Amino acid sequence: MKILFIGDIVGRTGRKAVRELLPQIIESEELDFIIANGENAAGGFGLTKGVMDELLDYGIDLLTNGNHTWDNREIFEFIDDTDKVIRPYNYPQGTPGVGFQIINKGDVTLGVVNLLGRVYIGNYLCPFRTLDKVIEELKDQVDAIVVDFHAEVTAEKEALGWYADGRVSAIVGTHTHVQTADERILPQGTAYITDLGLTGGVNSILGMNIDEPLERFLTQMPNRFKVATGDAKLSGLIVEVDNNTAKATEVKRVAMVHKSN
Amino acid sequence: MKILFIGDIVGRTGRKAVRELLPQIIESEELDFIIANGENAAGGFGLTKGVMDELLDYGIDLLTNGNHTWDNREIFEFIDDTDKVIRPYNYPQGTPGVGFQIINKGDVTLGVVNLLGRVYIGNYLCPFRTLDKVIEELKDQVDAIVVDFHAEVTAEKEALGWYADGRVSAIVGTHTHVQTADERILPQGTAYITDLGLTGGVNSILGMNIDEPLERFLTQMPNRFKVATGDAKLSGLIVEVDNNTAKATEVKRVAMVHKSN
Amino acid sequence: MKILFIGDIVGRTGRKAVRELLPQIIESEELDFIIANGENAAGGFGLTKGVMDELLDYGIDLLTNGNHTWDNREIFEFIDDTDKVIRPYNYPQGTPGVGFQIINKGDVTLGVVNLLGRVYIGNYLCPFRTLDKVIEELKDQVDAIVVDFHAEVTAEKEALGWYADGRVSAIVGTHTHVQTADERILPQGTAYITDLGLTGGVNSILGMNIDEPLERFLTQMPNRFKVATGDAKLSGLIVEVDNNTAKATEVKRVAMVHKSN
Amino acid sequence: MKILFIGDIVGRTGRKAVRELLPQIIESEELDFIIANGENAAGGFGLTKGVMDELLDYGIDLLTNGNHTWDNREIFEFIDDTDKVIRPYNYPQGTPGVGFQIINKGDVTLGVVNLLGRVYIGNYLCPFRTLDKVIEELKDQVDAIVVDFHAEVTAEKEALGWYADGRVSAIVGTHTHVQTADERILPQGTAYITDLGLTGGVNSILGMNIDEPLERFLTQMPNRFKVATGDAKLSGLIVEVDNNTAKATEVKRVAMVHKSN
Ligand SMILES: [Fe+2]
Ligand SMILES: [Fe+2]
Ligand SMILES: [Fe+2]
Ligand SMILES: [Fe+2]
Ligand SMILES: [Fe+2]
Ligand SMILES: [Fe+2]
Ligand SMILES: [Fe+2]
Ligand SMILES: [Fe+2]
Repeated sequence: MKILFIGDIVGRTGRKAVRELLPQIIESEELDFIIANGENAAGGFGLTKGVMDELLDYGIDLLTNGNHTWDNREIFEFIDDTDKVIRPYNYPQGTPGVGFQIINKGDVTLGVVNLLGRVYIGNYLCPFRTLDKVIEELKDQVDAIVVDFHAEVTAEKEALGWYADGRVSAIVGTHTHVQTADERILPQGTAYITDLGLTGGVNSILGMNIDEPLERFLTQMPNRFKVATGDAKLSGLIVEVDNNTAKATEVKRVAMVHKSN
Repeated sequence: MKILFIGDIVGRTGRKAVRELLPQIIESEELDFIIANGENAAGGFGLTKGVMDELLDYGIDLLTNGNHTWDNREIFEFIDDTDKVIRPYNYPQGTPGVGFQIINKGDVTLGVVNLLGRVYIGNYLCPFRTLDKVIEELKDQVDAIVVDFHAEVTAEKEALGWYADGRVSAIVGTHTHVQTADERILPQGTAYITDLGLTGGVNSILGMNIDEPLERFLTQMPNRFKVATGDAKLSGLIVEVDNNTAKATEVKRVAMVHKSN
Repeated sequence: MKILFIGDIVGRTGRKAVRELLPQIIESEELDFIIANGENAAGGFGLTKGVMDELLDYGIDLLTNGNHTWDNREIFEFIDDTDKVIRPYNYPQGTPGVGFQIINKGDVTLGVVNLLGRVYIGNYLCPFRTLDKVIEELKDQVDAIVVDFHAEVTAEKEALGWYADGRVSAIVGTHTHVQTADERILPQGTAYITDLGLTGGVNSILGMNIDEPLERFLTQMPNRFKVATGDAKLSGLIVEVDNNTAKATEVKRVAMVHKSN
Repeated sequence: MKILFIGDIVGRTGRKAVRELLPQIIESEELDFIIANGENAAGGFGLTKGVMDELLDYGIDLLTNGNHTWDNREIFEFIDDTDKVIRPYNYPQGTPGVGFQIINKGDVTLGVVNLLGRVYIGNYLCPFRTLDKVIEELKDQVDAIVVDFHAEVTAEKEALGWYADGRVSAIVGTHTHVQTADERILPQGTAYITDLGLTGGVNSILGMNIDEPLERFLTQMPNRFKVATGDAKLSGLIVEVDNNTAKATEVKRVAMVHKSN
């Protein structure tokens, strides 16, 4: 099976990148599954129903989340009614939504898990032990398991990669909004990348208009961020997985730009 | 002029990568300057005189530092006597060592600056305002200014990139030990990459042996890290700068592996 | 001279405590100056013009701030037009407002300084070096200098106390909203307390209604805090300073409760 | 029953305070149980067997810990062989040592629990849910349950106080090394104080010699701390609990100084 993972989609410009560029990928690759991180899809902060529907329309199968899951409070109205959005599985007990989904395409079944790092982010259940648990829950039900690990520091991401190696088909990092060049297949067959990167404005700070975050660094004062406009990029990773062994057989970074005019 | 920047060299394995791979780059590229981040060069923590001399022997012109500058206390014995090591310029007033150096090669003069980010790292002088100040100090003395910005979060690095655009020839990020795939020349001519990446063990967590940092994530207990052994990679960026305009004209990522046998 | 310092006033309940309890203190003590931390006075977040005027009406001479200075954006409309509100002096250059004020009462002149800690709070100018600078600026203009040091960790507060000992008349801590029992006069004559404590709801979490912050600890999800109601306390410290030597001669903690009915 | 809780004992000077001052308290109060936080008892960092034995000799029944539990690696040699030392119960699964102990004195049985906060400290199990669990485990075995909650921020400590109110006999905070003046009995009968305070050198920064931590704030460079010498204080809280109802009936802060000569 072939899976495309799309990195954090930031606002209208990120959605434009998906709308304009995803069809080209779909045309050139035989994708079975398309997973995207949607935590910043609605104006840079969280998800709305409308934004979710728009992204699903473009062909995305499932949206994952991260530290911005609850930024737009509209999500509480639909997260328990949809099977198209997951949130980190290692949130505390009792959190709305679910932490994984099983998707079927033809006779292939994929388990998709969302985990959240803790270093410099917050106090969640241990992502390592949670991974053990979710593998136990999913392994007899699916052909392959893949994980969006939304985390800040490279050490935590690499550690989860090594911890998972041979037990899931892919660990793809999100959250930093900068694509890393370290995509690889770990020795036991797990595809790995530290960060899928940004789907959003090319000339930006993490997808947001440059002036406001820059001013915040200079003044240390609160201000309001805006989504960057202009040229839009789509960043991600294509992972090919052997349906029989669940081992990754190929990884290919995706980084495409749509010029605005 | 052509400058090679080498990402954080971690321990013996990182130095092996430099020894084995740098000659190949030197042979194929007409490098004028070679700058490397050395904050982890001595056993993963700091620098010693011996390690500094070894790295200079391999052809490196100048070593930069970061949050690990003072990890090996031997540095206090030589940092004020050498012009081959700089430490972040935005350390508090009165800190040993210097924050920039001017290097001459033939008739080309390069100013190299080291800055340290603050987010999740520590309380230093503002790297943005410090950059303004160092540009003022250097601009009439050098043909080009380049900056190793050692920082954790992508937002701070991108922000400094945009802030510096057109005023220095390159802002290269270090510290995360994972190379990013976002090398570019910003609109006003500044070469930029979020992180040069690791020079050290391929199968590692940030250049350290996998087991110990992984165990630390699982147990939250202190333990001792060891430098990873085995295959070694050299990560970096080559930046070509127009000697007349001081604008970057080309950027090329470097990622080479030396197989151990 | 006798100075009353009032700890962080939180919302309507904190203001009620001032209204009901400050007159009793004024009656029983010959206060020359009344300084209060107002960073949470407007609904728990920042200051408004109306809230400022209300507090000045109760007899407060000057309001200090902290990490919440800019929470209510109304402050930008009046901070540059009033001499009754100061904000941390160690904010970056170019920040609105001022970091100290000189107050005259009769023939006594007091310099009041506001500083902000950095540990776990943010990246500001060094509060230690900023203190040196402000002492230099003020020492020839005033009879005594006092400092509201708004900081999180006890180490940073104690360190500034020792650093300032003998050079200012008082270092009073704010920010934690819990009064400490360590008021003392340091050996060289500086009055010191780690934290003045909360002026606000007795049955609360830092002055806010209990349920919401408690739920946030349990769920790690964002929610909206409300100011606690009910019984209200006023916390602070009275410092007596010798007008000739500028040494503190007496410190007395204030902790009074106004029962609601 | 009457319980004395002693705040963080820092090094030799803290132990001297216990040696010189605890006998006076024992003489004047009819104490049933003496619990002390020992995470800094050995030179400021962790515990050794010798230090443990010394403190037990002085009459302490049980030593609790905190973020410094593992600082002295000698603890691994004895923590699993003693019932006189506990470590935070909300450490990850598989951690050496235990998180509570049951102590019998006459016909009274006390359960003592150690919990560690997460904010600005680290990633442990949720202290709130862990408290629920430990209450379930202990409630049928003991007459009363008391908790040393070792945490940094006042909000987390107050939140656990309110969360526990009526379910345990006392929540006493440790870690900040500064005694707070907010001791009280919460409405449902739980004794509470945000921090017991320091048992160690009076003229110090958190019990350590002043110069080194102060220099670290100024230079942001690593250096070695030393335990402060000179006058020594013992800080703590005496809690009286009704043996039948397990409700606290009285709280009294302890703050005594032993002058060195
Ligand atoms: Fe994101
Ligand atoms: Fe994120
Ligand atoms: Fe490094
Ligand atoms: Fe670093
Ligand atoms: Fe406050
Ligand atoms: Fe504050
Ligand atoms: Fe401690
Ligand atoms: Fe502690």
